[in-house]
Amino acid sequence: MKIAKHVRKLEGYVPGEQPRSRSVVKLNTNENPYQPSPACGDVLRRFSLDRLRRYPDPVFTDLRGAIAELNGARPECVFVGNGSDEILSVAARAFVEDDESIGSLDPSYSLYKTLAAIRNVKWVGVAGGAKFDAPKALALLKAKRTSLFLWTNPNAPTGEFAEPETIAAFAKRFPGVLIVDEAYVDFSRANCMALATDAANGNVIVMRTFSRSYSLAGLRVGYCVGPEPLVAAMYKVKDSYNVDAVAQSVALAALKDQKWMRANAAKVVRTRGRFAAALASRGWDVVPSESNFVFAKPPAPETAAELFAWLRERNIFVRYFPGPKTGERLRITIGTDGQMKALLSALDDRFSKGC
Amino acid sequence: MKIAKHVRKLEGYVPGEQPRSRSVVKLNTNENPYQPSPACGDVLRRFSLDRLRRYPDPVFTDLRGAIAELNGARPECVFVGNGSDEILSVAARAFVEDDESIGSLDPSYSLYKTLAAIRNVKWVGVAGGAKFDAPKALALLKAKRTSLFLWTNPNAPTGEFAEPETIAAFAKRFPGVLIVDEAYVDFSRANCMALATDAANGNVIVMRTFSRSYSLAGLRVGYCVGPEPLVAAMYKVKDSYNVDAVAQSVALAALKDQKWMRANAAKVVRTRGRFAAALASRGWDVVPSESNFVFAKPPAPETAAELFAWLRERNIFVRYFPGPKTGERLRITIGTDGQMKALLSALDDRFSKGC
Repeated sequence: MKIAKHVRKLEGYVPGEQPRSRSVVKLNTNENPYQPSPACGDVLRRFSLDRLRRYPDPVFTDLRGAIAELNGARPECVFVGNGSDEILSVAARAFVEDDESIGSLDPSYSLYKTLAAIRNVKWVGVAGGAKFDAPKALALLKAKRTSLFLWTNPNAPTGEFAEPETIAAFAKRFPGVLIVDEAYVDFSRANCMALATDAANGNVIVMRTFSRSYSLAGLRVGYCVGPEPLVAAMYKVKDSYNVDAVAQSVALAALKDQKWMRANAAKVVRTRGRFAAALASRGWDVVPSESNFVFAKPPAPETAAELFAWLRERNIFVRYFPGPKTGERLRITIGTDGQMKALLSALDDRFSKGC
Repeated sequence: MKIAKHVRKLEGYVPGEQPRSRSVVKLNTNENPYQPSPACGDVLRRFSLDRLRRYPDPVFTDLRGAIAELNGARPECVFVGNGSDEILSVAARAFVEDDESIGSLDPSYSLYKTLAAIRNVKWVGVAGGAKFDAPKALALLKAKRTSLFLWTNPNAPTGEFAEPETIAAFAKRFPGVLIVDEAYVDFSRANCMALATDAANGNVIVMRTFSRSYSLAGLRVGYCVGPEPLVAAMYKVKDSYNVDAVAQSVALAALKDQKWMRANAAKVVRTRGRFAAALASRGWDVVPSESNFVFAKPPAPETAAELFAWLRERNIFVRYFPGPKTGERLRITIGTDGQMKALLSALDDRFSKGC
């Protein structure tokens, strides 16, 4: 047969809708509502056609150096990918044998299951948040020969945050590679970077993205920091020129403007607090969030599925993940204050009309 | 162990050097010496920060539509990758089982061996050019369970061109998926696109790149056209947002300016003819080329290895592939007339001094 068996069975990952209309209140894919640093625009305007003509730096020397400096790491310990998605796909090739498995929290980023299916290995889920039980999780992962564990922190779609000490203790006893996916970390109160840069840990990689706090989802740049032998293995299996010249330069400009990124992240965090309180005052059950979204359950008799469809008809897009662990809630990205007001007034409108 | 066994053994693909100095005469990585269409610069200058902020179209609707139209295909039969490299990596996941193998001509693009090693399957080489023997090749591929064959046409590093009829006859008898890698096709006299768009062929995919004739190596955009079921399988295993928003828009602008691309390709072809004649008149053995480089053997007692090193010291970079099948020759990218003159006068200088 021409198509590999495990691919024929595969249901591809379904990303959140990307509507082309600008009139949509788009709160479904965790984009940052604020624009990236103006320095990014300067890079685009000044980008020479001659640099488009030539291959990019295959090892992103300038960007990697700046990332290393920002995080107190050596450049050899930094890898950059065409989005964090590519880093995950590279890790699945580098750290997993054909008879091993890939683990993550459950629920978590739904791509992880697809990633394991594409790699043609089993996916193993362990409960996160308050239900996380390290001895139980470690026993299960051992039984399932899990060699790569992807721990999103803060987690998605829940927004729950695990303390770095909890993750450090798990890492010490987990025999495989642990990737802490910190896609949302700039909206939270702590991070795990010290676990990746501490030479005492041989198995922790911390991953970050330019898609959220740096407002560069359109570009596809993610990076990770980890022990040099693991990072070297990732360089071996990556595509030769995996990050294009424009993306390298724009991401570098964004990284250098920490003040801009911090100010936008702080605005999102303030809006998140107000919005979560507004939902709670309307009877919603809101999971405490350390990221740029909230995961919340509407008051009965309202259901998440119906509300999702109703909002969508009104051009307000949020995210709904069907299934027993996620289907009671909506994941709502934190947008501008104006966008959140539009959502709340739609909800009030629906409520006042008695649904 | 934390790093997969086959990755520990792996020697990564080594791309041609990308010197940072602008004073180098750079004829080592088959870049186009002429700039991309000015329309590409317009796109960059006008690109809105708001589009950087949002995720790109995951299925590149506009770019895919334009590619489909240009090639007389339906959009469902077009796939776009973060460079052709990503398309190859996606194909290796979609069309190869763990116990099958990947084949190519030998010699050919040296990445193919690395691709098979990363996929943890065997690589199988068959002789190309005048030595191509279809029955022998098919028997070998059958014996080795080859399910994906990568046929670069014109081939690299040789520049040799196989007639579409030869490839069509091979495709009919090959039971796996055949990818015809037409990275250099705009510099040659014919192409195989009809094999990919003809519904009678269920197994031929034709791949193109924006890196050569469109002068966009810095961006990483490749595409392929093939039967819908095969292309659908590729969509299933790709990363969610594999081509960034800037790359999609700039590539689209380049594609629409066919006149610019054709004019640059014609200039390269004219320079190639003059340069090949100049080498031949100096006693070099030059493989007839249908691409934007020549593969040539210097006259004795000169050796390719020594000449490569000598030129490099003089800031003239060409490509040298050691080994029994390639080590007698240099692969020299066709640059501007001025760059080729600089190379020829360096060679004359060396010769007049008796090496």
